[in-house]
Amino acid sequence: MSKEHGKNFINGSRSSDGNTVINSYSAFSGEPLNTTFFQATQAEVEAACASANEAFFEFCNFSSSKRAKFLNCIADELDALGDDFVEIVHQETALPYPRINGEKSRTSNQLRLFAELLSRGDFYGARIDTGDPSRQPAPKVDIRQYQIGIGPVAVFGASNFPLAFSTAGGDTAAALAAGCPVVFKAHSGHMKTAEIVAEAIINAAQKTDMPSGVFNMIFGSGVGKALVQNPHIKAVGFTGSLSGGNAICKMASERAEPIPVFAEMSSINPVILNEGAIKNRGKLIAKELADSVVLGTGQFCTNPGLVIAIKSESFSSFIDDLSTEISNKASSVMLNKGTLSSYVSGIETLEKYHGIEVLSRGQSHEGQATPYLFKASSKLLLDSDELLQEEVFGPATVLIEAQDRNELIKCLSAMRGQLTATLISEEDEMAASSDILSLLQHKAGRVLINGYPTGVEVCDSMVHGGPYPATSDSRGTSVGTLAIERFLRPVCFQNYPDHLLPDAIKNSNPLRINRLINGSFTKDSINL
Amino acid sequence: MSKEHGKNFINGSRSSDGNTVINSYSAFSGEPLNTTFFQATQAEVEAACASANEAFFEFCNFSSSKRAKFLNCIADELDALGDDFVEIVHQETALPYPRINGEKSRTSNQLRLFAELLSRGDFYGARIDTGDPSRQPAPKVDIRQYQIGIGPVAVFGASNFPLAFSTAGGDTAAALAAGCPVVFKAHSGHMKTAEIVAEAIINAAQKTDMPSGVFNMIFGSGVGKALVQNPHIKAVGFTGSLSGGNAICKMASERAEPIPVFAEMSSINPVILNEGAIKNRGKLIAKELADSVVLGTGQFCTNPGLVIAIKSESFSSFIDDLSTEISNKASSVMLNKGTLSSYVSGIETLEKYHGIEVLSRGQSHEGQATPYLFKASSKLLLDSDELLQEEVFGPATVLIEAQDRNELIKCLSAMRGQLTATLISEEDEMAASSDILSLLQHKAGRVLINGYPTGVEVCDSMVHGGPYPATSDSRGTSVGTLAIERFLRPVCFQNYPDHLLPDAIKNSNPLRINRLINGSFTKDSINL
Repeated sequence: MSKEHGKNFINGSRSSDGNTVINSYSAFSGEPLNTTFFQATQAEVEAACASANEAFFEFCNFSSSKRAKFLNCIADELDALGDDFVEIVHQETALPYPRINGEKSRTSNQLRLFAELLSRGDFYGARIDTGDPSRQPAPKVDIRQYQIGIGPVAVFGASNFPLAFSTAGGDTAAALAAGCPVVFKAHSGHMKTAEIVAEAIINAAQKTDMPSGVFNMIFGSGVGKALVQNPHIKAVGFTGSLSGGNAICKMASERAEPIPVFAEMSSINPVILNEGAIKNRGKLIAKELADSVVLGTGQFCTNPGLVIAIKSESFSSFIDDLSTEISNKASSVMLNKGTLSSYVSGIETLEKYHGIEVLSRGQSHEGQATPYLFKASSKLLLDSDELLQEEVFGPATVLIEAQDRNELIKCLSAMRGQLTATLISEEDEMAASSDILSLLQHKAGRVLINGYPTGVEVCDSMVHGGPYPATSDSRGTSVGTLAIERFLRPVCFQNYPDHLLPDAIKNSNPLRINRLINGSFTKDSINL
Repeated sequence: MSKEHGKNFINGSRSSDGNTVINSYSAFSGEPLNTTFFQATQAEVEAACASANEAFFEFCNFSSSKRAKFLNCIADELDALGDDFVEIVHQETALPYPRINGEKSRTSNQLRLFAELLSRGDFYGARIDTGDPSRQPAPKVDIRQYQIGIGPVAVFGASNFPLAFSTAGGDTAAALAAGCPVVFKAHSGHMKTAEIVAEAIINAAQKTDMPSGVFNMIFGSGVGKALVQNPHIKAVGFTGSLSGGNAICKMASERAEPIPVFAEMSSINPVILNEGAIKNRGKLIAKELADSVVLGTGQFCTNPGLVIAIKSESFSSFIDDLSTEISNKASSVMLNKGTLSSYVSGIETLEKYHGIEVLSRGQSHEGQATPYLFKASSKLLLDSDELLQEEVFGPATVLIEAQDRNELIKCLSAMRGQLTATLISEEDEMAASSDILSLLQHKAGRVLINGYPTGVEVCDSMVHGGPYPATSDSRGTSVGTLAIERFLRPVCFQNYPDHLLPDAIKNSNPLRINRLINGSFTKDSINL
């Protein structure tokens, strides 16, 4: 490991021009860990962005196979990190070892999936309309389109995924795959982790001959504004709280040049229970749901925060079962002191709130998060009460009992945008829920039947996104290969000689990719 | 034609609750035309947006063939509009009859192209990852993704294209194709035209059983803010000036919920001349370029506003030739008084500006726009002088002589984002310009070789977009089938029984569309 601990990563070198130093803390003791970090100065932020911009013009023109090699090499470097690395992540985040190892594999697999996507080539969006000089009333010119990187991307890592949604996480992988250099703002919750991962990326960049500014990382609080507002930055990826995401959107809106901001923020991930399902397998559902609520101390953006069903005897029994399940759950350590105090204050607010009651609480332990089950009046949802719509980040969930089907639909309609929405139902009652399912697709990025929203598969079909406030732009996903689209823009070439065209749209189709030629998809070459 | 002239179109009816009436004017005499228009009240704007929202839930779930029928029917209705309609457009805009008829065909062809796109089905972006219960360490769930409409879209029509970029123009066609109802703000420059086209759309909506709120149109100035900030509106399409587009972006940024704004704004469309080309065919290029500059009184967003080459004897001769060509060009009537006075004041500013000289002017005529050719010091571009970067809307262009190749590249690098960039070059000198071409793809949405940017083909491959300030979001195009992507968002379905899935991602592939299944594109059905 490098001897230059705590310095910013700028243009392939380490930099520590500032006077402000900050600490990373043990998630267990709250004590500062041994490395101090240099907060980036304004000039360092600018230098990082300028180096990303300089790298862009070379990087975005690299062949997709060359960029794939870089991504695979980062994955190899990550895989090579051993137990000492896992121990550091554990110290900074209190996440259990198996979870960290799982997240590490997920992160390198994600990089490899983007490398595969680069080979497949559909991200190019290659489209060709060949010319026709004889067309009347005017000749038709040859026009060809593909997608290129939008420019340098600023990425803000998440507190809750120190690897998969951080330094070498999905946003970084998608941006690099798209040909966009990255300026990454390390999360204050796991800066030692970030440093080691950034070193892995830089090693990979050097081994695969990438330009030195292809990846940069800055430390510090209060450096976000300078980053988002830097003219070289052409898009932003963010994972975090609603207030954090809204702040980033506001910073971006103050720029002269608007840029897309993809902030993944707040979601309460409603779970709707049909009567037949709770009647036939209520105890099992209660157990599975309780497991999903406390999984990873509830520190997932897909944590089920709202459970809703129509009043019935079965639902009453289910409520009892779920209460028992939650009361049997152990407390656990959260990511850091700030996360725990947010959770505690969120719980206190719910406890005191008119129309909300505590149904049960899990075991408690000093300095840990206690699981909670609340019941809220449906009126709170119907009145669009802010409180119930806001995510409480941690192992808590809120039950709502609708008086009838009409009220259930009204409750669901009043809900804000979500990452996920889930229907638990027996086969024979699903068809009758088709109106609910149709509504849910406008409320969420992912709709599940008979599953639990925690656990986000990294694949082509995944949408980890959704209408506001789940994200700031429902047209993007931050997980899965479609994530690359956020950082690409189309450009077309009119009347170009073949040899000057990018490979993706040359007559001979040297990349052997699927292309839309004169309205039909084909891998054929063009013989003019 | 309807007897209810001048009223807003809301939810399939006409509405005139307000007290403010406004006029449309003759582009020739400046006198008010016989119909007065009712400015929409705040409540009417809200009603229009609410009706679009109500229509959305039905409209977006229609089969693509049903939406295609609607688009084709609008096209038929437009085609059926006769000479009396063309006369009205002519009165309001002063555009010549052949141009209006051409634009009318272009508009209906555009609608038909989107109908074809709906049949082709690739806009669904269908992706399927089938499940694998035996996968280790965790089973793989079945996940399927497609794209649905984002919600109601606000569209602001352009002054310079009363048909193709207005009421039933590209933004409206793309939004309707995507399953998004439209609230259209009629441009004050051609409200009578807008009314007739809106009636055609409403007729088509009724004939094809669309929900009554599928298309709404409001009149008036100062109603834009209420429209853009209405919570039902989920995206904005705009074509107009830089200041207008910036204002719309600012309005949108003040919303609680961020929405994408696709504003197509300002572009000077640089034309770069290589020495060989001007040496071998300078006179022809001068003639073609002059024709392109004055085409349609220069009232195109793709009008070539900047011509740049390296200093040479050939370029000096070319400058003389172009000066002669421009001096022989006639003046012509602009769209309206406002457009003319903007042009005149733009010309006056250029005339007085330090470092800019008039090379020649065309014939002048009271109340008409005179063509102008200017020459500017390259220093103005290098110093990022605002003036030279701003579009002067009308038949004027500015020449720049670079001292050497190095200065040419610096000038191009200093240029802001453009809709188009053009290289005029002989075959044998193109390869040496590959660095310039590579730079231009980051500066523009469309790069041309040996052509002129005026004339925007409506096809799959077209990009009518580009980096700011050409547009507010370089990831979109407002012409061509890719325009639909602006108004779609992905949603995925996890563990769904086949019969509840949308047709686009059902096992049997009933729509016979191309889909990405487990990483490969195929039209095959799935046998599980």
